[in-house]
Amino acid sequence: MSVYRRIGGNLIAYDGLSFYNGGEEFAGKIKGRGSFVLVMAYTDTALIPGITAAGASPELTPYTPPLDAELVHTGRIITLDNIAMTSDAIPTPGIITRAAIMLSDFREFYVDAGNRIAPVVPHFRVGNGPGADIRTGKAVPCAKDIIENARKVGREIASQSEYLVIGETTPAGTTTALGVLMAMGMDVNNYTSSSMPDNPLSLKASAVKEGLKNAGINGTCDPLKAIECVGDPMMAATIGLVQGAKGVPVILAGGTQMAAVAVLLSKMCYPGEYDLALATTRWVAEDGSASLFGILKGASINIPVIVANLSFARSKYKGLQAYEKGYVKEGVGAGGIAAAAILKGVKKEKIEETAELIYSKLMGQP
Amino acid sequence: MSVYRRIGGNLIAYDGLSFYNGGEEFAGKIKGRGSFVLVMAYTDTALIPGITAAGASPELTPYTPPLDAELVHTGRIITLDNIAMTSDAIPTPGIITRAAIMLSDFREFYVDAGNRIAPVVPHFRVGNGPGADIRTGKAVPCAKDIIENARKVGREIASQSEYLVIGETTPAGTTTALGVLMAMGMDVNNYTSSSMPDNPLSLKASAVKEGLKNAGINGTCDPLKAIECVGDPMMAATIGLVQGAKGVPVILAGGTQMAAVAVLLSKMCYPGEYDLALATTRWVAEDGSASLFGILKGASINIPVIVANLSFARSKYKGLQAYEKGYVKEGVGAGGIAAAAILKGVKKEKIEETAELIYSKLMGQP
Repeated sequence: MSVYRRIGGNLIAYDGLSFYNGGEEFAGKIKGRGSFVLVMAYTDTALIPGITAAGASPELTPYTPPLDAELVHTGRIITLDNIAMTSDAIPTPGIITRAAIMLSDFREFYVDAGNRIAPVVPHFRVGNGPGADIRTGKAVPCAKDIIENARKVGREIASQSEYLVIGETTPAGTTTALGVLMAMGMDVNNYTSSSMPDNPLSLKASAVKEGLKNAGINGTCDPLKAIECVGDPMMAATIGLVQGAKGVPVILAGGTQMAAVAVLLSKMCYPGEYDLALATTRWVAEDGSASLFGILKGASINIPVIVANLSFARSKYKGLQAYEKGYVKEGVGAGGIAAAAILKGVKKEKIEETAELIYSKLMGQP
Repeated sequence: MSVYRRIGGNLIAYDGLSFYNGGEEFAGKIKGRGSFVLVMAYTDTALIPGITAAGASPELTPYTPPLDAELVHTGRIITLDNIAMTSDAIPTPGIITRAAIMLSDFREFYVDAGNRIAPVVPHFRVGNGPGADIRTGKAVPCAKDIIENARKVGREIASQSEYLVIGETTPAGTTTALGVLMAMGMDVNNYTSSSMPDNPLSLKASAVKEGLKNAGINGTCDPLKAIECVGDPMMAATIGLVQGAKGVPVILAGGTQMAAVAVLLSKMCYPGEYDLALATTRWVAEDGSASLFGILKGASINIPVIVANLSFARSKYKGLQAYEKGYVKEGVGAGGIAAAAILKGVKKEKIEETAELIYSKLMGQP
């Protein structure tokens, strides 16, 4: 797909992007020097067997957020000797993020919303440790504090940025996304995505239902309570960051998790209060087991959407080809930062090639 | 005092510095681009009434480390509307640090060794919350983990630095310094400095004695145990940073607290393993109520010392003149980073003037 658009008198080719809901108009705001913000969080929800593919083993899952941050910031893994890959060597989408960062002039900021393990990367800290298993119904009791802390950080980052691209790395984050959407009364049981080709929807839904029951939610609750009971720390941090960055365009870089954040935000502000768009990968946009657009439509929010039509179909590595078979799909803000880089003139193919190079270096492959 | 030295064929004036124990030779290594590292920590020892002047009130004392970091990094205070000053408007030495940072090309890194409150500044996190009151004898049970985490961070920082200047901001840190020195069997009761002109030596010594008793230490213990029982998280982090930065010259920027770290380190390594110096302010070096050199001599360590002969005697502000009367004296790496800036060609008077300007802006004074 290819779209052309005239900005400031110059014809710019947006090869590799698709736009929905006014995404093209929003894209016109992406100029100057923007900042990539990676929000890290862990939730004990990730301990539910079979719920996430993040991390080579359950013991390593809490390392996924810090390792993603290290990879994006340095191109290396520091905290562990192992690498941030799923068990069959399918790499984290962080390789795409790292590629986009290397190919453009983004500033980078890292935010610990609730890590179990701190990354060896300078970061802001807005939370106080991991979220609890959502089945408890007490997932993030301190969500309000996280929002408030993140607001200050968002203001600080926005003061030195022409726009923000906010991505996240949160194992089991699609389950908590389902959680808050259901807590707010949305019928979205089949709408959230997964890092696995066989989306464990019934497993996720039963975890959410247990959490809602234990939280005493059986109708519709407000967004803050939804996060506190069945959400994750990333959501609270991202909401605070957006609030603090008011006045500056913000791209929520992600799939169903960021769609859930957009829905939460839409219920906490007046229409048009924030200048927001959602940007993700083709792998999420085309996900047959979920529906990004279904979530947005279900919540009646009309947020601009930009899709980066990345492809690893021509890759020589099986680990990257797996993306074409429904593995991983999105995360670490990959789709959104790739879209922003493309809007700044970076070729989509260059991002794919650079990601492949980063992957081969990580694997020690030629 | 004025010292001249020939480096690389050029005569460089070190106006404003004094050298001891081979400090001049060490100074020759300070060239290229160095990094300033600020280690932040809090300890509940600061809650002992009368023990520290850091913070405008006991409730605000835990804010001192994050506010110092914010001031050095941005020139502003973010977390509180109040400012990081002692109760009678005597400013934090962070204004000197900020001045030196502004006037040279140092990279800056911030390390949370054990904060109660996170700064709105990107930082590494190597600890897990504040240290306990040393009277418990269980001040920093996780000191070993902090050292290990800090080692990774030190390695990371050193990989992009030609030298390191490590400063600290730790309320009640002179008391914990006394603690570890006494725990290691040194007779240094009257040797540690204070941020107050009337050094509460007996109060400090009685807190240490209570801690030693509760820890069951009544002879001489090893350095790690000393920190675990009656130290603070800053010490563990600084030791780890130095170990990780092995091979790169490191200035420990501080007075009696950094002298205590030097003593701890000397008992954990072989002679010459690290390329270390100590640098501080004239206010500490001339402190009649304490003896930096007494501590070093007592521990039989022959570390190079550099003193920045800063003076606020000519300042128009009473808050700065107070430094000449024995208030504050040192902290936030002020003496060491000022010395490094002077070694890089910045005039001492320029640092003093810039610090005064920062102070007047903070106070909203003309």
